[in-house]
Amino acid sequence: MKQSGFAIFSLLIGALFLCFTIPVFAFDYFQPLPNTVPVPDNNPNTVFKVELGKQLFFDPRLSLDGSLTCNNCHNIAAGGEDGRAQSLGYKQTPTRRSAPTLWNIAYQTVLFWDGRARSLEDQAKEHLTDANIFGISDENVLVERLAGIPEYRRNFARAFGEQATISLDTIAKALASFERTLITPDSPFDKYIRGNNTLLSEAALRGMEAFRQVGCLACHFGVNFAGPAPGPALHMGDGFYELFPNNRGSKYDKQYHLTDDKGIYEVTKNPADKYLWRVPPLRNIALTAPYFHNGSAKTLVEAVRIMAKTQENKVLSDQEIADIIAFLNSLTGQRPALLLPRLPATPGVTVFK
Amino acid sequence: MKQSGFAIFSLLIGALFLCFTIPVFAFDYFQPLPNTVPVPDNNPNTVFKVELGKQLFFDPRLSLDGSLTCNNCHNIAAGGEDGRAQSLGYKQTPTRRSAPTLWNIAYQTVLFWDGRARSLEDQAKEHLTDANIFGISDENVLVERLAGIPEYRRNFARAFGEQATISLDTIAKALASFERTLITPDSPFDKYIRGNNTLLSEAALRGMEAFRQVGCLACHFGVNFAGPAPGPALHMGDGFYELFPNNRGSKYDKQYHLTDDKGIYEVTKNPADKYLWRVPPLRNIALTAPYFHNGSAKTLVEAVRIMAKTQENKVLSDQEIADIIAFLNSLTGQRPALLLPRLPATPGVTVFK
Repeated sequence: MKQSGFAIFSLLIGALFLCFTIPVFAFDYFQPLPNTVPVPDNNPNTVFKVELGKQLFFDPRLSLDGSLTCNNCHNIAAGGEDGRAQSLGYKQTPTRRSAPTLWNIAYQTVLFWDGRARSLEDQAKEHLTDANIFGISDENVLVERLAGIPEYRRNFARAFGEQATISLDTIAKALASFERTLITPDSPFDKYIRGNNTLLSEAALRGMEAFRQVGCLACHFGVNFAGPAPGPALHMGDGFYELFPNNRGSKYDKQYHLTDDKGIYEVTKNPADKYLWRVPPLRNIALTAPYFHNGSAKTLVEAVRIMAKTQENKVLSDQEIADIIAFLNSLTGQRPALLLPRLPATPGVTVFK
Repeated sequence: MKQSGFAIFSLLIGALFLCFTIPVFAFDYFQPLPNTVPVPDNNPNTVFKVELGKQLFFDPRLSLDGSLTCNNCHNIAAGGEDGRAQSLGYKQTPTRRSAPTLWNIAYQTVLFWDGRARSLEDQAKEHLTDANIFGISDENVLVERLAGIPEYRRNFARAFGEQATISLDTIAKALASFERTLITPDSPFDKYIRGNNTLLSEAALRGMEAFRQVGCLACHFGVNFAGPAPGPALHMGDGFYELFPNNRGSKYDKQYHLTDDKGIYEVTKNPADKYLWRVPPLRNIALTAPYFHNGSAKTLVEAVRIMAKTQENKVLSDQEIADIIAFLNSLTGQRPALLLPRLPATPGVTVFK
């Protein structure tokens, strides 16, 4: 009797708890962009660091032959990527996976399609020393090149202190700091969710509901529609992975080469990791065709149709797809005004052979 | 008697005329940047046209595969070029000649190293349809691509009128309009020449005098240090050519491959045109290493030494070279603050295959 009394009490407490938490979770599913971004403790954002990072981001001297900048593949004059299925790295080596957008990347808990990097800093370090991306594999080559540019020496000292040196670490930190400023607030969705109920079209509102009912929200929820929202520091690097394709065996697997690439398994070699991917963010998704890790879906229409089938085993009507796309279009935010940096000069000489 | 009286009168008038004009010419040799740029009558600069031109300038969709923008080779985050001897065009095809800076290009009377284009508009048209540059040779491919982007349709209508169409002509006009805004005023030289006598170092002042005495001014005079200053419309397209190398036969001809390329002769096939080149401008020359049409001189030191020998048959001392470079460094102007454009989107699709 005593035990059953305790059980009832527990149930009541549990129910009470749920009453309070369910609305909180429900609210979490659709979240506007917050006013701040998560920043790692060891790389606080400062104006000087951001400005330096912007110079580096646009500087072709990060590539061995001057043919590429970060912006070539992550074009922030556009959707934060290059509109190509694969990007073209050093000597036009195609990348294996499609360049993800940098807009709102600050809200991603892990980086790369397979989430193998735990921070923007780690992502930058990997690319900066990838001979297939920038043509440089030895970080000393890059460091010496930048250290030979007087204004960069001054700018690194200003950003990291007089005692700091130019290193792969400080280069990556500056780049990451700049990237954390690439936020697109005030999408129609954000305005709606903050209370301006008239901003979304009927189609977008129907699409929002379809997005929920189809099950997209199971993975695409939170600030960046990419899983758990990172609290400041709290979730940094936690990541959020899902199976893709989840329901294997549809005609799309072959048609879109969805199972050629096994995701994070290719790094971990853990059989449980096969086809696990970081959930990709959906903000500004309208600007980042083609879609999927391999860029195989040329249009958002295809991407939505395929995702419904491969993830939820559902076949959507054209109307449902159009509605969901109207909703996804509402996730396109306001790109901030960005001044083109003035790159530090090497008067009278060039760093290229 | 009557005739000789007239001759004396003529001489007097002539002498009087020279008294007034020689100082004017002398002043012309060193000229500060004027407050206006020459603009062709058929392409007046407007805010909308300039803004559209900037979008096009930064838009990788001008290249067939999205690998290049105008800014890749004419990098206006830097010295207006790419710091390479040859630029890399479509599929990394090396260009034959080194990319010239776009800074203050508005003051050049003819374009390309060999001056074969009579205007920025013509220069743009040639590049936009050069399969080795952007991978597109049929202008209709480019026009259809841009016409498929709704915001470009609006922006072209705003810039050229509702009746205007997107065409190679209007694309080139918009690009040229933007390029005419790329001015770097207020170099130390400009401030000096406008009357601030304290701004140039002793070395730069010695170099200015050496520049005159060595004979550099014979070609490098006027607003852009590239020959006759274009008055509004007056000199548009006149051009100004000089022999390079002028004194053929020095060791430099071979060492720097100075006679492999025969300049405008290769277009005209007129024997009198052999080794004739448009005089290249010297503003911001410190930012545009390597030097010469073939980028064969890696440093400004080499370039000055070679030019003195090949053009004036003079061997300069290290001190003279250092002084001249101090003067040339004073020609580096203030690069304007430029907002990165926001490129028109194609929601849900990409223009690339």
